[in-house]
Amino acid sequence: MQVLPVEGLPEVQPGDDLAGFISERFQLRSGDIVVLAQKVVSKAEGQVRDLRLVTVSEQARSLAAQIEGDPRIVQLILDESVRIVRQERILIVETKHGYVCANAGIDHSNVPGEDSVTLLPEDSDLSAERLRSQLRERSGAEVAVIVADTFGRAWRMGIENVALGVAGLPSLVDYRGQKDDFGQAMYATVIAVADELAASAELVMGKTARIPVAVVRGYTVEGPPGRGRDLIRPADLDLFR
Amino acid sequence: MQVLPVEGLPEVQPGDDLAGFISERFQLRSGDIVVLAQKVVSKAEGQVRDLRLVTVSEQARSLAAQIEGDPRIVQLILDESVRIVRQERILIVETKHGYVCANAGIDHSNVPGEDSVTLLPEDSDLSAERLRSQLRERSGAEVAVIVADTFGRAWRMGIENVALGVAGLPSLVDYRGQKDDFGQAMYATVIAVADELAASAELVMGKTARIPVAVVRGYTVEGPPGRGRDLIRPADLDLFR
Repeated sequence: MQVLPVEGLPEVQPGDDLAGFISERFQLRSGDIVVLAQKVVSKAEGQVRDLRLVTVSEQARSLAAQIEGDPRIVQLILDESVRIVRQERILIVETKHGYVCANAGIDHSNVPGEDSVTLLPEDSDLSAERLRSQLRERSGAEVAVIVADTFGRAWRMGIENVALGVAGLPSLVDYRGQKDDFGQAMYATVIAVADELAASAELVMGKTARIPVAVVRGYTVEGPPGRGRDLIRPADLDLFR
Repeated sequence: MQVLPVEGLPEVQPGDDLAGFISERFQLRSGDIVVLAQKVVSKAEGQVRDLRLVTVSEQARSLAAQIEGDPRIVQLILDESVRIVRQERILIVETKHGYVCANAGIDHSNVPGEDSVTLLPEDSDLSAERLRSQLRERSGAEVAVIVADTFGRAWRMGIENVALGVAGLPSLVDYRGQKDDFGQAMYATVIAVADELAASAELVMGKTARIPVAVVRGYTVEGPPGRGRDLIRPADLDLFR
């Protein structure tokens, strides 16, 4: 298995043909898995907000004072969220898409302009599916697509890249019911392969090197295609709400 | 970056020379990162228990009845743990090593003998350091080592490979204070690279293919070597105890 950076991408603007940019710079092959940082997808989709245009509510102002944050960003976080999970130093929220993450995935880094931030894509699975079609058109290759972002974790330090949107490959692979090498049924062995693929890709992206896209080549997995939303734990299976 | 399976390893017995087995089958190069599944390390270290020899306490018997588990395994889980974090269907515990995981990492699959289970290594960082020395002796190559296991996550479905023990490379890379591409200071951008490397390796290991070791080649990271224990979130920074 190889993990290859897609180098030389320009700064992406709303409306840009991201699939075209990638296809021009990287010879895609069928079976490749194209992993894109959420931020570049959000930029192409125009999911960028100007903080100077945000109207701050009383709730956002009060919350911002408590956590010593920018009231305008707190307002955007509240707009993107359905529930505050933890409020301490940062806001850990459940977003309207269902992700549990810090600051609703709103990000200020690597965005041009002091007052600009990116939101997560409206529907990362749809973004992945759309990019998959566009990459097929531009390159002729039948690829899979993952839209990824770095999230913090309970119990463990640091952030790790995870799959928000998935198209063209399983997001989870269920080994339950298969026999292991000694003939015993394995239990609770459902691997989040799309998250592991996102994690792999991050290693060649770097955070400052402006490589927001990587390609995983030579990974094969059986099973019906899944979605990023399959990786979101439903409330009734979540012991850590 | 390449992720390469180490194929053809025999079933490992307590006391086996795991580093020798790997070096004989795979031409290691300096800079390689050798990722080993915890289970094969535990087997080599004799961290295997015979369930028929377990004396079950009243506490374990009662807990096993509540979760409909095997009282002998529940006893071993309690022996390996300092705290039960959640108790529902499975036991999520904080192990004596500090990991928060299901069933204290005790595993019944891919272990020969119906009554045998593996425990986590006593000290995965020490295991990694020891393997690193042994691999240097056997192969002449200066490699890094990660001892990894698949853990469940809060909020997300499925399990993912993470780094328990680390030797010879940073476990976290801290980009805070570096400037991003637009000159803004990045915040909260500490990447758990050892976890991402563990995740990458899992993709070529498979769960039934008996490939418990993989090599990541071509990944470079700057910074002082870290340990697996750096990836454990200290209690005072943990909002989800």
